[in-house]
Amino acid sequence: MGDSEHAWKGTAYPIVPLIPDDRERRLVMTAPGGQHGSRLDPWMQSYARRTTGMTASEIRALFAVASRPEVISLAGGMPCLTALPMDTVATTVARMLSTQGLTALQYGSGQGDPTLREQILEVMALEGISASADDIVVTTGSQQALDLVTRIFIDPGDVVLAEAPSYVGALGVFAAYQAQVAHVTSDDDGLVPQALEERIVALKAAGKRIKFLYSVPTFHNPAGTTLSLARRPQVVEICHQHGILLLEDNPYGLLGFKGEPYAAMRTLSEEGVIYLGSFSKTFAPGLRVGWALAPHAIREKLVLASESAILCPSAYSQMTVSTYLATCDWMAQIKVYRELYRERRDAMVDSLGSLLPQATWTHPEGGFYVWVTLPEGVNAKAMLPRAVTERVAYVPGTAFFADGTGQRNVRLSYCYPDPDRIREGVRRFAGVVQTELDLLETFGPYDATGRGAGPSTGVQSPAPDLS
Amino acid sequence: MGDSEHAWKGTAYPIVPLIPDDRERRLVMTAPGGQHGSRLDPWMQSYARRTTGMTASEIRALFAVASRPEVISLAGGMPCLTALPMDTVATTVARMLSTQGLTALQYGSGQGDPTLREQILEVMALEGISASADDIVVTTGSQQALDLVTRIFIDPGDVVLAEAPSYVGALGVFAAYQAQVAHVTSDDDGLVPQALEERIVALKAAGKRIKFLYSVPTFHNPAGTTLSLARRPQVVEICHQHGILLLEDNPYGLLGFKGEPYAAMRTLSEEGVIYLGSFSKTFAPGLRVGWALAPHAIREKLVLASESAILCPSAYSQMTVSTYLATCDWMAQIKVYRELYRERRDAMVDSLGSLLPQATWTHPEGGFYVWVTLPEGVNAKAMLPRAVTERVAYVPGTAFFADGTGQRNVRLSYCYPDPDRIREGVRRFAGVVQTELDLLETFGPYDATGRGAGPSTGVQSPAPDLS
Repeated sequence: MGDSEHAWKGTAYPIVPLIPDDRERRLVMTAPGGQHGSRLDPWMQSYARRTTGMTASEIRALFAVASRPEVISLAGGMPCLTALPMDTVATTVARMLSTQGLTALQYGSGQGDPTLREQILEVMALEGISASADDIVVTTGSQQALDLVTRIFIDPGDVVLAEAPSYVGALGVFAAYQAQVAHVTSDDDGLVPQALEERIVALKAAGKRIKFLYSVPTFHNPAGTTLSLARRPQVVEICHQHGILLLEDNPYGLLGFKGEPYAAMRTLSEEGVIYLGSFSKTFAPGLRVGWALAPHAIREKLVLASESAILCPSAYSQMTVSTYLATCDWMAQIKVYRELYRERRDAMVDSLGSLLPQATWTHPEGGFYVWVTLPEGVNAKAMLPRAVTERVAYVPGTAFFADGTGQRNVRLSYCYPDPDRIREGVRRFAGVVQTELDLLETFGPYDATGRGAGPSTGVQSPAPDLS
Repeated sequence: MGDSEHAWKGTAYPIVPLIPDDRERRLVMTAPGGQHGSRLDPWMQSYARRTTGMTASEIRALFAVASRPEVISLAGGMPCLTALPMDTVATTVARMLSTQGLTALQYGSGQGDPTLREQILEVMALEGISASADDIVVTTGSQQALDLVTRIFIDPGDVVLAEAPSYVGALGVFAAYQAQVAHVTSDDDGLVPQALEERIVALKAAGKRIKFLYSVPTFHNPAGTTLSLARRPQVVEICHQHGILLLEDNPYGLLGFKGEPYAAMRTLSEEGVIYLGSFSKTFAPGLRVGWALAPHAIREKLVLASESAILCPSAYSQMTVSTYLATCDWMAQIKVYRELYRERRDAMVDSLGSLLPQATWTHPEGGFYVWVTLPEGVNAKAMLPRAVTERVAYVPGTAFFADGTGQRNVRLSYCYPDPDRIREGVRRFAGVVQTELDLLETFGPYDATGRGAGPSTGVQSPAPDLS
């Protein structure tokens, strides 16, 4: 917690941790030949203040390289769609278009298809949620729901609380709306309630306006942890006591590897929680269908904000999902996904156990990610180019913090490569780490002016495959 | 022009013309039983400043009534999809999924599918545009492009120039980002260059920051007019002289009723124009596929903003469009649409000519809309409930101004109902207008405190069918 305290010094905004420093900005704004940005961009003086912090990540170019087939990517969060019965989906969609094409290809409701919203109730019921279809807003993936919630709540300088680490795509949205992100200490059981309470009290004492707590309580991205059942009511109660909204982001909740799904935080509070769901991981992300379930008054604002942003979500995508849910055995498909990801989780965790004894890592019970902590002195971002040279890619931990922490961490994904590729990827990764440790022993640790890249200084837009 | 000067008095923001006054806000925030909003919405104090102006239109509920089948809606902008060869589309999509399903259902590039971007070049070439696929960003309908452009350029209080009247969905976006909208006088040949020049000079003298001119130069929504070829270079030159970006919104450009398409404004300036295109009217809106073509540096910002907003546009929708373009005769389909809309335009204009001699209206050469000016004293918004009772719906003119003008105007759409329904709709509309004129003669004109609704006091989010 203490490591991000420096974020709260200084004026209300621009915000220290979210605006990259001049050195980084030049990386983006300067031409390779060294021309000043304004020579390249005649509109440079016209951008909004929020746009100043909007810079491409330095690791972006690297990920273009990492997408080559010889590189094993443990970086992306792409679901494994080979498990989908593609011919069944194709037949289903063709029938849907032939019978309901005029509706599917037309403008639809800004709030989303009523039939699909009813079906979403059934999906959420698996996590114990009881709600009204009228309180659901269908969005272009749950990323859009994140954007809309932030849009309606955040003025520049407002504070968003978030786990440490936190989903990089959410940090990008918070930065785009000039929020200050205050990370809250999290451990193997998720967010630490006492740390949350203390953080809130300290921020309020400093005169900050805290708008919401952003949390991925179940099968966390990137941490791979789950908020324990004991802590869930404590977190909800702390938020309630302090008048802070809880934004529960739950794309992985149905992808647990043992037993019944966890009850969502939303089951503990109807008025205090906005719940975000998605079909990206339980069906397919290319449809871009997610949703928000919100207290009624907030739902009204979300619909208006969404209409302003996109008029209406795609009826075509929504009716594809709706027809799939109505005519295919979607629960069996989720079971297929679960088994598949469990096998891959095992491959990754077993390989780490035999190949990387110098590190520690989390043991996910669901979802897509393992969070690795490397030995003291290793800089995961600086190490990445070498890893890509060795044909393995990962996401450096600093991407998941708004304040530059996470240098020793990496996120490894096991969702996309098959188990053999995972094992080979971990083998390559372990080799890179070992070389790094040998270098460290010989030359000493990195520093900001030494070899390799310095610490991260800001949240940067991820490439989409980092989702 | 002078009619919106009052907008520029007072403080920088909140902005007078875009934030509904208390009376209107209460309409939304107050429960039917009269409870104060804060009783209903415990989060009322938490919203961002931009959310204050986000209120549901009063005419929204009316349009729910207007969607009943007995009501002839001349309000919506829904394309006539019965003209699409639906079985061909269904077969095409099924084949696409069977052969490329793993890509179509997966996350894709934040910028948009490379193949589709190449095909978009061919579409834009019909309007004389020469560009690089690398400067195109695919969006969730061109509404999202509007949102992204506004997001990266507008700080609260910045000025957007717009035709008078202007597209309601764009005004909603500008309001959402707390822009001030300055309308520029427009006539049957579109935007008046001299008025544009004078408006810019006056705003600059008043210390305003003008960010861009928003224009629908071809087959305007709602005006039904087209910027003349003579004026196009003048408008581009005035923008260039004053360092103002031109945002050319062109969803209807290929739906002209005679001869070749107009050359886009983008053909006159590569560095000064962001061009927005859409497949919503030339193919189908339910796919939500539009695009922005932008100067390179701006395009980079748009991609980052879009990734923050939605991660990536739907690969499924994009590949559906891409496959349709590659395998179906899309130009023949556009010709079918043109003929169909020309017939409907004729039905509407002929009916107006025989049934509404008291009014004047525009004569669109393409697109979806006729802009009607009713006799002095008629308040089109106040008249709407009576019209719906008489089973005809339209959009009151005030929806298309940020400053409350347009009270005598209505937008009539001829895109969706067939010619017989259009003729019957105009007959009902003419009857309502005649009754109104009779009432006026008996009781005198409306005023803000008199019978019916007062003048509009702000831009309000449209229902999606108003697009």
